[in-house]
Amino acid sequence: MTETKKIRTDVDNETFWREVGLDVERHDDLIKGLPPVFESVFLTQKNRPEKISYFDSFIQDLHGKRPKEVYDRKNNGDKVIGAFCAFFPEEFVHATGAVPLVLCGGAEFPIADAEKILPRNTCPLIKSSFGFKISNLCPYFQSADLLVGETTCGGKKKMYELLGEYVPTHTLHLPHKKDEALSRNLWFEEVKKFKGKVEELTGRKVTDEKLLAAIDLANRKRLALARVYNTRKADPVPISGKDVLLVMQLALFDDAERFVKKTNELAEELEARVDRGEGVAAKGAPRVLISGTPMTIPNWKLHDTIEKSGAVVVTEESCTGTRYFTDLVDTSDASSSDDLIRAMAEKYLHINCACFTPNNERPVDVVRLAGEYKADGVVYYVLQFCHEFNTEFAKVERALRAVGIPVIKIETDYSDSDRGQLKTRIETFVEMLKASKASKAASVSKEAGIKASATGS
Amino acid sequence: MTETKKIRTDVDNETFWREVGLDVERHDDLIKGLPPVFESVFLTQKNRPEKISYFDSFIQDLHGKRPKEVYDRKNNGDKVIGAFCAFFPEEFVHATGAVPLVLCGGAEFPIADAEKILPRNTCPLIKSSFGFKISNLCPYFQSADLLVGETTCGGKKKMYELLGEYVPTHTLHLPHKKDEALSRNLWFEEVKKFKGKVEELTGRKVTDEKLLAAIDLANRKRLALARVYNTRKADPVPISGKDVLLVMQLALFDDAERFVKKTNELAEELEARVDRGEGVAAKGAPRVLISGTPMTIPNWKLHDTIEKSGAVVVTEESCTGTRYFTDLVDTSDASSSDDLIRAMAEKYLHINCACFTPNNERPVDVVRLAGEYKADGVVYYVLQFCHEFNTEFAKVERALRAVGIPVIKIETDYSDSDRGQLKTRIETFVEMLKASKASKAASVSKEAGIKASATGS
Repeated sequence: MTETKKIRTDVDNETFWREVGLDVERHDDLIKGLPPVFESVFLTQKNRPEKISYFDSFIQDLHGKRPKEVYDRKNNGDKVIGAFCAFFPEEFVHATGAVPLVLCGGAEFPIADAEKILPRNTCPLIKSSFGFKISNLCPYFQSADLLVGETTCGGKKKMYELLGEYVPTHTLHLPHKKDEALSRNLWFEEVKKFKGKVEELTGRKVTDEKLLAAIDLANRKRLALARVYNTRKADPVPISGKDVLLVMQLALFDDAERFVKKTNELAEELEARVDRGEGVAAKGAPRVLISGTPMTIPNWKLHDTIEKSGAVVVTEESCTGTRYFTDLVDTSDASSSDDLIRAMAEKYLHINCACFTPNNERPVDVVRLAGEYKADGVVYYVLQFCHEFNTEFAKVERALRAVGIPVIKIETDYSDSDRGQLKTRIETFVEMLKASKASKAASVSKEAGIKASATGS
Repeated sequence: MTETKKIRTDVDNETFWREVGLDVERHDDLIKGLPPVFESVFLTQKNRPEKISYFDSFIQDLHGKRPKEVYDRKNNGDKVIGAFCAFFPEEFVHATGAVPLVLCGGAEFPIADAEKILPRNTCPLIKSSFGFKISNLCPYFQSADLLVGETTCGGKKKMYELLGEYVPTHTLHLPHKKDEALSRNLWFEEVKKFKGKVEELTGRKVTDEKLLAAIDLANRKRLALARVYNTRKADPVPISGKDVLLVMQLALFDDAERFVKKTNELAEELEARVDRGEGVAAKGAPRVLISGTPMTIPNWKLHDTIEKSGAVVVTEESCTGTRYFTDLVDTSDASSSDDLIRAMAEKYLHINCACFTPNNERPVDVVRLAGEYKADGVVYYVLQFCHEFNTEFAKVERALRAVGIPVIKIETDYSDSDRGQLKTRIETFVEMLKASKASKAASVSKEAGIKASATGS
């Protein structure tokens, strides 16, 4: 645990940070907050899987080791392409040997800087990302040769216009509808145009062969994550929601091949735990599905509150969750370069983002996931001022109530100001889930008793 | 003035309201608030043009006379098509003899009802519109056979999904970009599809001849509004900003032919005033341009505050302003039905809505309008939680500062809770404009004095 406190005093990092143009003095203030939070949220957990240590060590030097690797690649002529969203077609980036990074900001620290330009009434993720860049507080951002935005929401698309004044930014035109021929074609052409953009930036051609290999790599990453998630269907659950969230968050930062290897190692350990009936929470602990907006490092607030209330998070219907990995790029019918790109474009349109209208697949998906992961209740998570996910709650809530699954909506930002209120609401919800489980169990055993006496057994 | 107080006691209206399914008891509470506000905002003004009386009388029976006319048309077999936005291609509606209405909600009253389903953190216009429908508080809404939404923002597009559960709703897919071939084509096809929708609903064909006549009608409405606006370039200005806002707001409710006639009559009177040098504000009064989100009845708060502070509003860069009427549908090169539709589609894409990314034409346009209307300052108006217009402020502000025009951003909702703060901020801004005008005038006259003494004249 003392390791986590070393970050601030790592002199090598400081030299590196100065070289890449970080505002080192302010960055010190930012980064020193991380170890105590990480310790309190993660390291106090009991019976964690051993293989999570790789992901712990990644976080413990988040702004050191991995950014240095990225800069090594950059110094060797590879470009770095940063993005903010699950709609980012990372396959082209892999195919040109460039480095893809997903840069969403999850920290409160740079928000005050962003609010000098962006409205306060905007989603914390948007303000945090923008603040990280304009204040030179993130080595990943510093490394990017190109940033890739997308038109998922009004706040983001307008922020990207302003971000483009600091660093080259390409905004993918994601249409509002996913079920119309013209929209699908527009998106296909947009993905194809992005391929050209990556080729131009890197000076390297995306051959079919390289693209197939890149698709395979991205698919293997998705499969490794799906494999970890699959173990969470067991009761007792072999890993905490927090730990899986950490893995998900690092999927967006780490080297893809290494990440696949480490995630599969973790999955293997978890599968063995499931076989042994070993869990991190007691069998029968209330199981929570989180559905909604993504959570990026170090946004661990909601998981932490839920799991410290005695429940366990068993899945995330989120872009830092199932929406990121569920669909693979299916190239089995592809017989041309355009077919490969179309397969990619289609995969991304299957992400049930609330930015689509309508997005009727999402309530269905949340109900399906709640069933598969045996969730006792759903916490619907909305980053403050996200109109899309916030308004879509009405439909998801209705779908869940129709099958008798309790749901609570939590709208919050990155600040600590609502921590007390959040804790109270979550604890009440978890108590309600416990009471409901106990009453169901009692009624099942009563029924079993009646049956037993009726049959005389 | 006593006329305005009659609304509540109009027994004929009450019978009508019951017939069309209004919640009459709650509607009484809603409508009784209007006369005192209208009196305080409008009827206390001095030296108003005579021809504004038509528009006054419209408001004084807002939920009576005009909705009855609409129902008479409906009972005669004409359909009623309601919309919420300047992107609504009203020409098809005129062409089929149906009644177009733009239904945006500008009242606080139904918002509490809407917030039972929609997030509180959403734009008041969205909540008000939705609340009016679900609570049966608006006879215009009651009359609509079809509502037409559009994908201008996340809050609206997701609200339309829910609205569609109460009344048939068709959402136009407006793309995020206006300057790409595929986007323009998607929008053209979307407009064309809407023509089919209107034909299907009304059972009437949109022939080229009828469409040309409808385009001509809509263009004449735009020209009549432009003619009124043009008189506001004079100093002293012949009409208050409030009165023009009233005209703009009714452009969306009134019978189009009658509205054109009445608006041209008003324009004629204003032109005569300009010729005589007659104004509603003193010559030299600070001139304010309002730029931003639309204002629908009875949202008169900002204009009222500005004009009661001693300034005059000389133009609105808004969808209840120049964005509504500036561009005409140009059919001069059209030689087919598709050409006519394409001309319409192109006109609508010229609306510089902040929903587009980028929307670089808008800052340019605000600066141009400030020059043409000799604005001393700009009040940038944002309906609360409108990410698009709020974020775009950064660009508009920069463009205005570059040419030395002061600007203040006002973000507000429909409540009265910020009236005091709003008044203070606006008064301070207007005092600053006055001081700046006085100092400029002094420096001009000093310079003139120096020149005069230098030339010995």
